[in-house]
Amino acid sequence: MAESYNICLDIGGTKVLGAIFNSKREIVYRMKKKTKAGGDSSQNVEEVIINVAKDLLEGSGIKKNQIHAIAAGAPGVINQDSGIVLFSPNLPWKNYNIRKPIEDEFGVPFYIGNDVNVGVLGEYKFGAAKGYNNVVGLFVGTGMGGGLILNGELYTGNKFKAAEYGHMILDPEGPLCNCGQRGCLEAFSSKQGMSAYIRQQVARGRKSAMAEAVSEGVFKSKALKSALNSNDPVATEAVNRACHYLAIASGNLVNTFSPEIIVYGGGVIEAVGDVFLQKILSEVDRYCMPSIRETVVFKKAALGDDSILYGALSMIKK
Amino acid sequence: MAESYNICLDIGGTKVLGAIFNSKREIVYRMKKKTKAGGDSSQNVEEVIINVAKDLLEGSGIKKNQIHAIAAGAPGVINQDSGIVLFSPNLPWKNYNIRKPIEDEFGVPFYIGNDVNVGVLGEYKFGAAKGYNNVVGLFVGTGMGGGLILNGELYTGNKFKAAEYGHMILDPEGPLCNCGQRGCLEAFSSKQGMSAYIRQQVARGRKSAMAEAVSEGVFKSKALKSALNSNDPVATEAVNRACHYLAIASGNLVNTFSPEIIVYGGGVIEAVGDVFLQKILSEVDRYCMPSIRETVVFKKAALGDDSILYGALSMIKK
Repeated sequence: MAESYNICLDIGGTKVLGAIFNSKREIVYRMKKKTKAGGDSSQNVEEVIINVAKDLLEGSGIKKNQIHAIAAGAPGVINQDSGIVLFSPNLPWKNYNIRKPIEDEFGVPFYIGNDVNVGVLGEYKFGAAKGYNNVVGLFVGTGMGGGLILNGELYTGNKFKAAEYGHMILDPEGPLCNCGQRGCLEAFSSKQGMSAYIRQQVARGRKSAMAEAVSEGVFKSKALKSALNSNDPVATEAVNRACHYLAIASGNLVNTFSPEIIVYGGGVIEAVGDVFLQKILSEVDRYCMPSIRETVVFKKAALGDDSILYGALSMIKK
Repeated sequence: MAESYNICLDIGGTKVLGAIFNSKREIVYRMKKKTKAGGDSSQNVEEVIINVAKDLLEGSGIKKNQIHAIAAGAPGVINQDSGIVLFSPNLPWKNYNIRKPIEDEFGVPFYIGNDVNVGVLGEYKFGAAKGYNNVVGLFVGTGMGGGLILNGELYTGNKFKAAEYGHMILDPEGPLCNCGQRGCLEAFSSKQGMSAYIRQQVARGRKSAMAEAVSEGVFKSKALKSALNSNDPVATEAVNRACHYLAIASGNLVNTFSPEIIVYGGGVIEAVGDVFLQKILSEVDRYCMPSIRETVVFKKAALGDDSILYGALSMIKK
């Protein structure tokens, strides 16, 4: 019998990561393609997805009839049951059925879920959170994403909108967040939050190796890594502040869920996760109820940039 | 066939509420007994429970052999599967098997769970949260208790320690909480938090109808009701502040769980819940992600002081 493969996708606002997995759950071929998200129409994003899948087949030499299923994580509120993207902050989708065109094109089932939900699922099935029953995921990227595994199952709440604790308010007088509120975790601890802090300090005349990296938006994780390596004071302050509020948020989540593990992932953690983990761990005890703290561990994601690809794989039914 | 009955108990730090339910889930007899908790030994609390159960039988004329089961809610971390109280803040129990002596005495199954967990279960099965699938409970009493129904089941997390969001930190520079941390929801919005605020204002020379009620600890809910009715300014401030932080915490919980409902219960809500709900509702929108806010309702507990009794009833297996 011929080998069977699955195509998995991580659909971002600016790029699509794609991989082909064999039946041993190994990645046999992968690629990355930039998207011009913001201005594009739903159809265009859909075309990018279809093109990435086709390019994966062409590049790998694997035939369309060897594909068992396609699965993806994408930003936004996504009905995993119906494949309808209810809303996506960075993609031009609103109440859009993305499943149908993909299934029509390839003739195999297409699964889709919220990217961070799917990433945490990946870490639960194959990564740092494997073997734990209650998992809280915090993904530090441009924004701050969340994902929950409760009693061994992905928890999505009413209408697939749960785990938005990136917008947990930790200081009602804190900095303005993109969401319109003040003092959310995201406003302190995401790339956006840290970039805003660095930009403000630079505007006050302080020097920072990251001045250019934040001048027109959010820094790239590599720039943060390099600034921390050179002990840039402003970057270090931004990270200390980010980790302080991540520690408070982590304590709140520990007290709320009594999870076995909090797993930290996303681009920032992939780049400078050891620094973040060390700083978070140095503070987090004081924000957890001691009796609950005893039975939780804090870990970095193990699958790095592939969490979402592996999570997508784990959504596929046999 | 003779009618079958269940005995349900709400075991508090200072009192035990007891009720006998008939097979139609109606309370046919009830009583309340004070306990001297703090100093008592585990055996003494156990005796109080046994005595209340016996008094219920005697007072109602129902025979021991007509009892199908006994169930209770009690403060603390309780292993619902084994009936072992791991830790209780207000009762002298530590790793104490309370199930065995009760079952030995009455020869029927004994069920026990955390009081607020059980209270939220009661509201879910028989009260304000009936018919909802994901329920966040906030019980405002001496402390601030939590209980979660997720995907239609009581969620207790790892080792039965979940739902301690009374200790969610909302302001790292806020007032000291009993737990040792600053700015927890409990430190602002529980009877303890409100009492501390009123006591401080009185110490600063302000007049309040509640001065005496808080002079040696926490007020009784009735005293708060009466002070609010007379527009006592200090009491009103304490309530406004409590509701402000309850609104923030509610927003954080909405964003975290995307529940269908947040249900507010406990002694304070039973006494002045309409005032609290109105104030919370006037603020809460600004602390919720709008798309999640759309699909959640906020309600007062419907079973009042009987939430825990009804929740205990619902733990009993047929």
